[in-house]
Amino acid sequence: MVWGGALMSEPLLEQLIDSLRCLPGVGPKSAQRMAYQLLQRNREGGLRLSDMLRFAMERIGHCQKCRNFTEADICRVCADTSREQTKLCIVESPPDMAALEKATDYRGMYFVLHGKLSPLDGIGPEQLGLEALCERFDSGVITEIILATNSTVEGEATAHYIGELARTRNLSVMRIAHGVPLGGELEYVDGGTLSHAFAGRTPV
Amino acid sequence: MVWGGALMSEPLLEQLIDSLRCLPGVGPKSAQRMAYQLLQRNREGGLRLSDMLRFAMERIGHCQKCRNFTEADICRVCADTSREQTKLCIVESPPDMAALEKATDYRGMYFVLHGKLSPLDGIGPEQLGLEALCERFDSGVITEIILATNSTVEGEATAHYIGELARTRNLSVMRIAHGVPLGGELEYVDGGTLSHAFAGRTPV
Repeated sequence: MVWGGALMSEPLLEQLIDSLRCLPGVGPKSAQRMAYQLLQRNREGGLRLSDMLRFAMERIGHCQKCRNFTEADICRVCADTSREQTKLCIVESPPDMAALEKATDYRGMYFVLHGKLSPLDGIGPEQLGLEALCERFDSGVITEIILATNSTVEGEATAHYIGELARTRNLSVMRIAHGVPLGGELEYVDGGTLSHAFAGRTPV
Repeated sequence: MVWGGALMSEPLLEQLIDSLRCLPGVGPKSAQRMAYQLLQRNREGGLRLSDMLRFAMERIGHCQKCRNFTEADICRVCADTSREQTKLCIVESPPDMAALEKATDYRGMYFVLHGKLSPLDGIGPEQLGLEALCERFDSGVITEIILATNSTVEGEATAHYIGELARTRNLSVMRIAHGVPLGGELEYVDGGTLSHAFAGRTPV
C-alpha cells in the first residue's frame, strides 16, 4: 500500500502506481513520484507514453533474419545491402547489439540469441534459434563468425557450442578479445580477468 | 540517439525509449533498459501500464472539495463522513497529503493547494484555489486550520497568508512544528533548523 489507508485509496491512481512498478528499477516511492509528476505537470507526455507502449508491445516482433526487435519483417540492419553480408556477429541480446553498433565500426550482419545456453533453465539450442542460425551458416554467404556473447560461464559455453557448429561448416570463427579494460589499473582488476589477460598475451 | 546509427534505428522502439524519458529520473540509459525489459520479458505488464496511463491521464481530475487527485467528483477523504469535519489541514501537494495520512492519526479534512505562493512564477491566490478555501472557511463547519505547507520561504509565506485569511474569520490557526528531526543528532542538524528549534523551545 503506497497511498495511505484503505479509505483513502483512489483506485485508479493506486493502480497506475502499481502498474509503473513493472518498469525495472522502479520501487513504490519512484512509482508514486512518477504518477504524481505526470498528473501534475505532463499529462500529454503520459498519454504519448501510453500510446507508444501499446504500439510497441503489440507491433514490435523479431526480425526474421537476425531475431533483433523490429516492427518490420526484416530489421534495418539486415535490410541494409551496403553492409558486409559475409560477416556475422552473434550477440546475446539486442542491447548488446546496440552497444557494439554504437562503439565499433563493424559494418557486417548480426544474429541475436535472446539468451544463452542454460540447460537448468530449460534454455537449449531451440530457444536460441540455433536452427535458423545454422541455416544462415549453410547459405554460403557468410564466411566469418564473430562470437560476442558475454564472458560469463554460460556465455562462454554458448560461444563454444556455436563455434563448433561453425567450424564443422569450415567458417572462420573469431571471439571478441577479453583482458584488462582500457584505462584499467592492474591493481584493481579482478584475478580472473588478470590471469586471462596474462595467459592471452599477444606479441607487440 | 540512444540506438546506434541512423540506419540502425527502429523508429517504434526509439519512440518508446524517447517517451519513457517523460518519467522523472529516467535518462536515456534507463529508458533503453525499460523498453528492452518490457519487450523481452513483460509485454503484458507494458500493455497494462499503457491502459492505466491512459485511464489515469484522461479520468483523474481534482476533488471539488479538497482539490486532491481523484477520478470521482469528491475524493474518498472528503466523502468519508466519519472524519472530523471541523478540522482542515492545508498542504502543498497530494504526496504531502499522502505522507501525513500515512504517518499521523489525523482524521480531519484536507485542502490541497497544488503549489505555493510564488509571485515571480505567476502563482498567486487564484492558482492555489484560495477562493474555494475561503468559501470553506466561511461555511461555518470548520473551526481549526492546520497549516502543513513546507518550511521553505515560499511555504512559510503561503502559510502566513492563509493564516491571516483564517484569523480574520476567527478560526483557530495552527502550524505544524518545526525543529530537530527525531533521532537527529544536534551536531549534524543544519544551523537554520537548530536555531529555529532553540528559539521555539517548549516547557517539559
